[in-house]
Amino acid sequence: MTVNIDLKKEIDNSYDITIDALPTIKIDNKVAIITNPKVSGLHLGYLLSRLEAKELYIITIPDGENYKTLSQIENILDRLFDHKFNRKSTLIAFGGGVIGDMTGFTASIYQRGIEFIQIPTTLLSQVDASVGGKTGVNNDYGKNLIGAFHQPQAVYIDPYFLSTLPAREFGAGVAEVVKMAVTFNAEFFEFLEDNDLRDSKNLLIAQQRSVETKAWVVSQDEKEKGLRAALNYGHTFCHVVENETNYTTYLHGEAVAIGMMMANKVSVELGWMSQDEADRVENVLKKYDLPTTYQIQDVNAFYEAFFLDKKSSDSSITFIFAKGIGGVEITDKVPKETIMKILNEYSV
Amino acid sequence: MTVNIDLKKEIDNSYDITIDALPTIKIDNKVAIITNPKVSGLHLGYLLSRLEAKELYIITIPDGENYKTLSQIENILDRLFDHKFNRKSTLIAFGGGVIGDMTGFTASIYQRGIEFIQIPTTLLSQVDASVGGKTGVNNDYGKNLIGAFHQPQAVYIDPYFLSTLPAREFGAGVAEVVKMAVTFNAEFFEFLEDNDLRDSKNLLIAQQRSVETKAWVVSQDEKEKGLRAALNYGHTFCHVVENETNYTTYLHGEAVAIGMMMANKVSVELGWMSQDEADRVENVLKKYDLPTTYQIQDVNAFYEAFFLDKKSSDSSITFIFAKGIGGVEITDKVPKETIMKILNEYSV
Repeated sequence: MTVNIDLKKEIDNSYDITIDALPTIKIDNKVAIITNPKVSGLHLGYLLSRLEAKELYIITIPDGENYKTLSQIENILDRLFDHKFNRKSTLIAFGGGVIGDMTGFTASIYQRGIEFIQIPTTLLSQVDASVGGKTGVNNDYGKNLIGAFHQPQAVYIDPYFLSTLPAREFGAGVAEVVKMAVTFNAEFFEFLEDNDLRDSKNLLIAQQRSVETKAWVVSQDEKEKGLRAALNYGHTFCHVVENETNYTTYLHGEAVAIGMMMANKVSVELGWMSQDEADRVENVLKKYDLPTTYQIQDVNAFYEAFFLDKKSSDSSITFIFAKGIGGVEITDKVPKETIMKILNEYSV
Repeated sequence: MTVNIDLKKEIDNSYDITIDALPTIKIDNKVAIITNPKVSGLHLGYLLSRLEAKELYIITIPDGENYKTLSQIENILDRLFDHKFNRKSTLIAFGGGVIGDMTGFTASIYQRGIEFIQIPTTLLSQVDASVGGKTGVNNDYGKNLIGAFHQPQAVYIDPYFLSTLPAREFGAGVAEVVKMAVTFNAEFFEFLEDNDLRDSKNLLIAQQRSVETKAWVVSQDEKEKGLRAALNYGHTFCHVVENETNYTTYLHGEAVAIGMMMANKVSVELGWMSQDEADRVENVLKKYDLPTTYQIQDVNAFYEAFFLDKKSSDSSITFIFAKGIGGVEITDKVPKETIMKILNEYSV
């Protein structure tokens, strides 16, 4: 005998991403702000002036990618249990990508899932990480290897927070903006060539375009069965670079810049991109002092590390390449020789 | 500016639950069977004779509710990373409810979610726990407080595995069958009164009815926003009993039997159930030597412990009560005095 369990249904997971000065947020339940000492020191007062909660807790976790671990998640969970958080309670992620990923993952597994709100404070998290519901932590095997898809209830992007962002972190955010433009929007890329995002009017336009692009891609393919993988342009290389350098040498966006450069070299090799187009991408990255090269010590080890990428399978590696400017190719058919040829260019 | 991210869509999460001798299962990818030494010793050979996988690993974890922890989940995750499992790999839960909950939770967070199959080997997991996608682990604060909703790809219920099940565990499974009948199906309850499930023909009927009931409830309300909570009839009391006795004195189903008795006393007190109906439920439970009473040491502590139940909020506790036989009431409106009166009856 067979019983079918039929969960086909309309799910309503839609939510708003507001790009504007933070409005007053009212929550008639327990709320925990998850943040780190740096963000808290700079901006917690501002957030508190905009927040009305029935009961409010502030949970501070150490700053940095090295603390994005399951054991830190357990610490946060314990705090929530201590304060008797329930299924109607809300978490607020207040910080950059690390805070957002960890808060989202905590929300996804606390009592099988509670609501959370993203209030990203870095450019990278404002234009990319806070949108789309990817959450997770790192472990010894790599980055974001443990996690869940858990959409936020709302995302508030307030450019004000960027006023205190160091130039290097600003550049790292621009790398993800460039990623979105190169793969999905040639006109937007030209805008990036012609304008400086350090001007706040231009920045606002770039934030809007990036978030629109990301929201559209995620709405097409929430769980990355297809199109959403395109947002990993540059990231297959990036993850290996980050892992080899223990996440300490480069900010994530910086490693993405290196990864896009590597991917573009393959694109040029395969005839999918002209050298001129690859140079144009490099020029935009250099405008923000982003690194564009990397010294590979062991090309075989670098290649083998691709296999732990979440997009890879036992026998093939899925890469994302730009096709010209504004196009994208997701493929696991590029010969190993082609990849190795490019990797070797980085080993001398 | 506001960007809306619209994830409204048809999701297709339907899957089949087969109640029959295990068919041959073919999986063209890496597979890990998660099991414990007891089940493995008795039945692994049988499972392996029915399984064709591209690459097969067996991960054995210690038996028992005490090992249903996040740290055991980390051990399983590490093994999967060691074997380079990818997003297309599959886990098989081979054991009782603990194995099912842990395997499902591991699958839900490995690389943000991979497939898993349930092959339950106890009556309790065959009629209840394996169906519906609730996964999770315990912690110091209580049971199943960390977890996710993650539906299996398929459930195979083979009554053959019950041939080795101790009578006490069989009874514990019957408690969940009784739960389903009392809350949703008066005719099924009469069947339970008139027949002995130790007869395999009767057992098969009971398994089918239970799974049909569970599948229907879950398809109405996957994430327990409403109706699904009815399946927690008896469980609000049960969780406190289990917690007070450190999960060692009673099997889960036994604590459910105690919990249903407590809930029925409240129902009788409120006029929702006649004493005769409550007695009929008690008689069915006793037929399988299930415990029907419990000694409460501290009624105030018992009451306070309700507030950590996942269905409770800061100020109210949600209880599930039977309304006669075949009916159910989900409510947070029962006065504390009524609950305390019944709890006091258990403290003398």
